[in-house]
Amino acid sequence: MKVTKQLNNIIQANELDFFLEAHNGLSAKIVSEAGFKGIWASGLSISASCGARDRNEISWTEVLDIVERMVNVVDIPILLDGDSGFGDFNNVRCLIKRAERRGVAGICIEDKIFPKTNSFLEGKNQKLVSTREFCGKIMAAKDTQVDHDFCVIARTESLIMGQSVAESIDRCSAYAEAGANAILIHSKKNDADQIQEFSQKWGKRCPVVIVPTTYQNTPTEKFKEMEISLVLWANHLIRSSIRYMQEIADSIMKNQNVYCIDSKIAPLSEVFRLQNTAELEAAEAKYY
Amino acid sequence: MKVTKQLNNIIQANELDFFLEAHNGLSAKIVSEAGFKGIWASGLSISASCGARDRNEISWTEVLDIVERMVNVVDIPILLDGDSGFGDFNNVRCLIKRAERRGVAGICIEDKIFPKTNSFLEGKNQKLVSTREFCGKIMAAKDTQVDHDFCVIARTESLIMGQSVAESIDRCSAYAEAGANAILIHSKKNDADQIQEFSQKWGKRCPVVIVPTTYQNTPTEKFKEMEISLVLWANHLIRSSIRYMQEIADSIMKNQNVYCIDSKIAPLSEVFRLQNTAELEAAEAKYY
Amino acid sequence: MKVTKQLNNIIQANELDFFLEAHNGLSAKIVSEAGFKGIWASGLSISASCGARDRNEISWTEVLDIVERMVNVVDIPILLDGDSGFGDFNNVRCLIKRAERRGVAGICIEDKIFPKTNSFLEGKNQKLVSTREFCGKIMAAKDTQVDHDFCVIARTESLIMGQSVAESIDRCSAYAEAGANAILIHSKKNDADQIQEFSQKWGKRCPVVIVPTTYQNTPTEKFKEMEISLVLWANHLIRSSIRYMQEIADSIMKNQNVYCIDSKIAPLSEVFRLQNTAELEAAEAKYY
Amino acid sequence: MKVTKQLNNIIQANELDFFLEAHNGLSAKIVSEAGFKGIWASGLSISASCGARDRNEISWTEVLDIVERMVNVVDIPILLDGDSGFGDFNNVRCLIKRAERRGVAGICIEDKIFPKTNSFLEGKNQKLVSTREFCGKIMAAKDTQVDHDFCVIARTESLIMGQSVAESIDRCSAYAEAGANAILIHSKKNDADQIQEFSQKWGKRCPVVIVPTTYQNTPTEKFKEMEISLVLWANHLIRSSIRYMQEIADSIMKNQNVYCIDSKIAPLSEVFRLQNTAELEAAEAKYY
Repeated sequence: MKVTKQLNNIIQANELDFFLEAHNGLSAKIVSEAGFKGIWASGLSISASCGARDRNEISWTEVLDIVERMVNVVDIPILLDGDSGFGDFNNVRCLIKRAERRGVAGICIEDKIFPKTNSFLEGKNQKLVSTREFCGKIMAAKDTQVDHDFCVIARTESLIMGQSVAESIDRCSAYAEAGANAILIHSKKNDADQIQEFSQKWGKRCPVVIVPTTYQNTPTEKFKEMEISLVLWANHLIRSSIRYMQEIADSIMKNQNVYCIDSKIAPLSEVFRLQNTAELEAAEAKYY
Repeated sequence: MKVTKQLNNIIQANELDFFLEAHNGLSAKIVSEAGFKGIWASGLSISASCGARDRNEISWTEVLDIVERMVNVVDIPILLDGDSGFGDFNNVRCLIKRAERRGVAGICIEDKIFPKTNSFLEGKNQKLVSTREFCGKIMAAKDTQVDHDFCVIARTESLIMGQSVAESIDRCSAYAEAGANAILIHSKKNDADQIQEFSQKWGKRCPVVIVPTTYQNTPTEKFKEMEISLVLWANHLIRSSIRYMQEIADSIMKNQNVYCIDSKIAPLSEVFRLQNTAELEAAEAKYY
Repeated sequence: MKVTKQLNNIIQANELDFFLEAHNGLSAKIVSEAGFKGIWASGLSISASCGARDRNEISWTEVLDIVERMVNVVDIPILLDGDSGFGDFNNVRCLIKRAERRGVAGICIEDKIFPKTNSFLEGKNQKLVSTREFCGKIMAAKDTQVDHDFCVIARTESLIMGQSVAESIDRCSAYAEAGANAILIHSKKNDADQIQEFSQKWGKRCPVVIVPTTYQNTPTEKFKEMEISLVLWANHLIRSSIRYMQEIADSIMKNQNVYCIDSKIAPLSEVFRLQNTAELEAAEAKYY
Repeated sequence: MKVTKQLNNIIQANELDFFLEAHNGLSAKIVSEAGFKGIWASGLSISASCGARDRNEISWTEVLDIVERMVNVVDIPILLDGDSGFGDFNNVRCLIKRAERRGVAGICIEDKIFPKTNSFLEGKNQKLVSTREFCGKIMAAKDTQVDHDFCVIARTESLIMGQSVAESIDRCSAYAEAGANAILIHSKKNDADQIQEFSQKWGKRCPVVIVPTTYQNTPTEKFKEMEISLVLWANHLIRSSIRYMQEIADSIMKNQNVYCIDSKIAPLSEVFRLQNTAELEAAEAKYY
């Protein structure tokens, strides 16, 4: 089944599903092999992997180049973190045109200004755009996509910016009317109370996506009760790689050798397996 | 000190030094923070991180884009794995021109055909080019570089291809005469005997670089005795990240939550620290 | 009709058609507006427009980036000049995967080594690969494409390299059997005799494409008689732009003003029209 | 002399100079060969050449890739049209860091919002940013550059937006104080009256750059009297190429042959000369 259809089905289904973050082809493959049904191509993680900040320091075409290499290696849908759309409605159109063509299954855009700053950071440029402006972006995105199943998810940073649940509901209602296939309600609270309140008031106008980064201690059962459609575990692989690369680098530095850590890391054969070397050997036999 | 001079000094110095592999801006930063004096921008690791094979499936300009983002975040020299030079002598010239400009401190090219296949794999295209052809590439590289300190390291795959130590010496002598700043002698044996024999016969015609991936159990002290100039630990961070991302992804999948692994991965604050968020806050106060 | 189907129909049709060269989005638009049914994304022209030589100095992903911007602005098929495939059969597979995804309608690859040198130049690396090796590339390309209509055209440089028409027929027969949708027979003679001889002996095993650059004085009627399927005018827009940019640049330099040439160049309004500014204004009214 | 120094000297000199627009490596070479002392890497022209609008539809890294290929082929300074800086002060910093490294000699940024719309078009997003915000960008740029001679030129769209000359003077004074090496005063009037008034009131606080696109009938002598430092002929090569490519494409289409136009376009040998094929032949003799 084509990835756009897969993603659309997951979002529309009456059960909770989970996407895990990936930030390059390798982590995408790992997410896929672990059994997840889809991938969150996280802006934070992609930026971090490049050594850049989550503030649009990496251009939108650089992001597309990275995501295209993820598309190359997995068959599950990739949901692209489109940040605030990399500019105005017209930049959103440029983004959709090329992202869809390169095999992205759907895109999520948020109602902050460009450049956006990560939701968990303070900063003078943590600002929402008007509901009207953001609806224009959603409409522009929906009118640009070619494949009917391509999903546009509207993310509100309303709660992040200190607005009330009622205000968030208003924004999301407008976004759904503008054509969003789902809404993503983001919170930086340490518990899921805001999200729960939002869910109750939201009803089932359209599917709801959440990102439980700060309220990650909430039992998954609770998200099911809230009738959440999709949970994004949004940054856990980049954080895994940081922890372990630091630990291993420090060990090597301290011991001035690598045999001290060799059994603790993946063998070279596992690198080759992930790269699908076997397929190349078969192809050489056929074409070379 | 400019990075080209740093690299040149390390190579010329009469003591053993160590570079650790990095494959993106993030891992480059981690290598730098761990205290290493330089970075090996590994072709295997960069390919693997992209989900591609170590066989020039990633174009040379894609490699440069990735390496430029490493340059952005560290002050230590980056030695670029230039594979077999991405084509003939003229492709080498194109590569040097743009790699040097983008801040790479030196480049290593090897005497295999294009496309190259990873040294530890079998394959019909595991072939050496002639000594004469490879010397042409080295000369072309040296004549193209602008900064006098930029280093070109000539790597021979002679032992990998089953040639004798004597044949390897012949090749490396020619490479040194052609202008290589150092030679890299590669072996896929499980012990360092070949390397030791090479070192003894080589004398000190020019500095020697090694990549102890398969003979990694050799005590570092032994490399010092051999008067090796530089050891490249060539793929240990990508292998670290694979091992741990797989483990964490599997845990999340199995438990359907992230609190089971949260304490085992880097906190979000560490991601922000690595991205140098503090500097952005200071800059906002100044420029915004 | 999708562009792959358009191209396939043109190639299969029993009448002569013509594609004109383009080297960027602008020239692609001009070709389309002039009424041509398709575009030849010429390697020579794309290289030249970048200030580079026709010898794979521009990476294959740089070529794809340029071609993607052509795809953005036209509805007619773009036939990509894939040179010698940017490496071996596996590089061809990487190329096809990404070129097809980005909207290219078909690709032409030639039986020279990588890097290739322009057919009209002398050079030590003007060499053919073996028939067997090139057939492997064709099969690899055909097995990689997803859309059944995507065209792979096999170009032989056999006549260019001084081989006989009989040898060229042998090569092309093998290429057709390997799955090529059409063959391109190239000649650097000043008359069409070789091409005519080839056509007669070839019969109609599969469609024939030609590039009358040196034998451009041949009446088009003659190509029809030979039952040629497609003529590529392969470099005429880049040559137009060179002639006129040089003339205008010299005039401005000499006169130290631009009013001397203003009426001789397109007005700014024409630039805006080609950029489809009107559509943006309408979109602003709708989305902003 | 390094290109940054060349550009700085030209701007500081007490005589009028002229830069001509280029939009790719080829046109850059033509500008250089015509005898101009520098190149204006125009945002309008680069966009147009890509088939895109002058509204930041092309990402800043795509622009850098195009400009890097210009740098590859000329020895004269390239002044990059940085539009409104591709975002806020921090995006300007990212831009400067990479543009300088890739060999750009200086950059011009303008005081409009991002995305910017071409000065000669109407549009809802034709808006200035505050003087304070733009000064932050200038300071950020100057603090980021590494080479002391790298030039940052501050362009005001104040007159374009209907503000008075006095208001423009106020803005430019602030920009000069913030560190701009020169100011660019833009006008869309059909005569140079505004520019003249500005020049008189401006005195010689810092060098002045102009873009006489609409008031191109003004005699160059007059610009000298105004003590203008640099004139940018900002779009004349792209307009040349459009005019002639359209004419030739139409001729070919109408006549169904190319011999009708062959003598009117550059011969293939001129393409090869511009690509510096002779140098490659010499290099082959040396390195191959």
